[in-house]
Amino acid sequence: MVNASLLSNDAPLNSAEDVSPSFERYTKEVLLGDLWQRPPLSVRDRSIITLSVLIARNQSAQMPHYLNVALDHGVTPAEVSGMVAHLAFYSGWANAVAAIDVMRAVFDLRGLDAAQLRPIDARPHPTDDMDEERRHAVVMRKFGQVAPGLVQLTRDILFQDVWRSPELSLRDRCLITICSVIATAQTAQLAFYVNRAMDQGVTRAELSELLTHVAFYSGWSSAYTALAVVKDVFESRPD
Amino acid sequence: MVNASLLSNDAPLNSAEDVSPSFERYTKEVLLGDLWQRPPLSVRDRSIITLSVLIARNQSAQMPHYLNVALDHGVTPAEVSGMVAHLAFYSGWANAVAAIDVMRAVFDLRGLDAAQLRPIDARPHPTDDMDEERRHAVVMRKFGQVAPGLVQLTRDILFQDVWRSPELSLRDRCLITICSVIATAQTAQLAFYVNRAMDQGVTRAELSELLTHVAFYSGWSSAYTALAVVKDVFESRPD
Amino acid sequence: MVNASLLSNDAPLNSAEDVSPSFERYTKEVLLGDLWQRPPLSVRDRSIITLSVLIARNQSAQMPHYLNVALDHGVTPAEVSGMVAHLAFYSGWANAVAAIDVMRAVFDLRGLDAAQLRPIDARPHPTDDMDEERRHAVVMRKFGQVAPGLVQLTRDILFQDVWRSPELSLRDRCLITICSVIATAQTAQLAFYVNRAMDQGVTRAELSELLTHVAFYSGWSSAYTALAVVKDVFESRPD
Repeated sequence: MVNASLLSNDAPLNSAEDVSPSFERYTKEVLLGDLWQRPPLSVRDRSIITLSVLIARNQSAQMPHYLNVALDHGVTPAEVSGMVAHLAFYSGWANAVAAIDVMRAVFDLRGLDAAQLRPIDARPHPTDDMDEERRHAVVMRKFGQVAPGLVQLTRDILFQDVWRSPELSLRDRCLITICSVIATAQTAQLAFYVNRAMDQGVTRAELSELLTHVAFYSGWSSAYTALAVVKDVFESRPD
Repeated sequence: MVNASLLSNDAPLNSAEDVSPSFERYTKEVLLGDLWQRPPLSVRDRSIITLSVLIARNQSAQMPHYLNVALDHGVTPAEVSGMVAHLAFYSGWANAVAAIDVMRAVFDLRGLDAAQLRPIDARPHPTDDMDEERRHAVVMRKFGQVAPGLVQLTRDILFQDVWRSPELSLRDRCLITICSVIATAQTAQLAFYVNRAMDQGVTRAELSELLTHVAFYSGWSSAYTALAVVKDVFESRPD
Repeated sequence: MVNASLLSNDAPLNSAEDVSPSFERYTKEVLLGDLWQRPPLSVRDRSIITLSVLIARNQSAQMPHYLNVALDHGVTPAEVSGMVAHLAFYSGWANAVAAIDVMRAVFDLRGLDAAQLRPIDARPHPTDDMDEERRHAVVMRKFGQVAPGLVQLTRDILFQDVWRSPELSLRDRCLITICSVIATAQTAQLAFYVNRAMDQGVTRAELSELLTHVAFYSGWSSAYTALAVVKDVFESRPD
């Protein structure tokens, strides 16, 4: 069930009638009237996906609306905080700084404070949930000689620290990363994270619908480029 | 013949002398003094191409200037309205929302109203002009199992509705889509749309000059990446 | 030694504690406390790399800070002026226009004027330093028929004029171009410029560390996509 905020009159999505009636019709009938209501992704999942795409593409203007939608549908302030830190690594530091400004404005208006930014369980995710030893060995063999500094930071900071941080579930980190990779046209990195998402229990139906959602927010071309990769991953796995 | 608005003193292109004299020189001598005057693309075509690149890359600051150039050179308000709806699908919803705000401001200043947004002929383009059955069959066979929802929306909304909408000619929709695909680095989607453009009568000389124009607005690297694809398409066709 | 401006309290990097403590920790400990201090790249090099990524991705909000860092660490106004003109070609005209506005504001605050924009030595770099004849012959053979206009502009303006302009060293132009290519996901163009950088004396260790720096500002995915190309180039060369 979609919360009223998504369809409210003050939403930045509801005002194109005067300059592009066709765009307005697609927004009402297709985007809000169909896409956001479709199984198997929840509105919570869709708001995480949408915010990830917007942050990865540095589109601040639409963020306040979708951040409110996210908070209205069960995304916690700690999870948003974790998303921004995660996406700093995947889509660039300046993207995170821009998102931080939006977060502050929205959190202030909703009376949220720092206490609510702490995750309920402060223990990091266990490393073996991510099969980190195998990943690191593969990357070391391939790139250890060429970029030892980057490979080491990838292990010590990105996978041992960011990915294990309890602010977000591993499942949500997979969705967020996939969105960032698609939205920044980094196709060569996609198969690894689609596999990781499936290892974390994300279903084929969910990944398929993620592509549908991403088509609207990151563009149809990016979704079809990703679709070819997702197809290959699906065909390579028994599950 | 280029309308005065492109070269007028209040243009946002004319003020870099104080901080980058070399950039100012390239703008005056190469961009305005050569590029915009070159055959076989008209200033109308070039303004559509430029706006498409700016919308696809979400670069609002330069849009008002080029939207005025477009309207001064025969692009109708209905065509601009159709461009934004088209690019919502190809480059993402937030890009269209940002463009809508620019459109509203420019339309207000020019005293344009909703009546001028209606296309003269309201009949949709016939489906067979686009060989839609063959396209859908190919995509269904390839991706129907992996992402049935996306494939269905691609048919029902993108090709049966957006592409057939009479606000824009099929020829212009091809140019706009090619620009979006290049500007968002979605190289894997380019050959399909270059072929479609040629099926709609866009010439080799026009596509070649489109790449030249795109080089300036989307970057030289994106033009050369696209050039390799366009070359392959040219070599694969008898026309 | 990092100048105080990079770590100063008024830096836009220092204020996320209230909304994302984890992002704040990574900024302080990893980005500022480690990355910017690492050999073999100087803070001057890192500020050129960071600005190039920000301009290529059109992220104006963070530019004033890093432009000040650049000017504090020995990048001259003439070099900044040359960067913007160079990146107009590689990442698009609108990106340069946006950067020009930031430059003007920062130059004004620092009391810089046009006299300081002139390079000390006004002679263009010799063409044979760039092996321009061989490059042009290869591109002519490959693309001369498909896009003669673009190929000619690439020679006459981009390589005979922009690249030879004395505002920037050839070495710095290589770093700037590589950053733009990575930040705009134009992977197919990367090998050429990595080879060119090595021809100009950029070392493997510097290129490796450039990738590490770019990971933070253009995103981890873009750095790993580039890493595969850089590895291939390294393996193809004796030096």
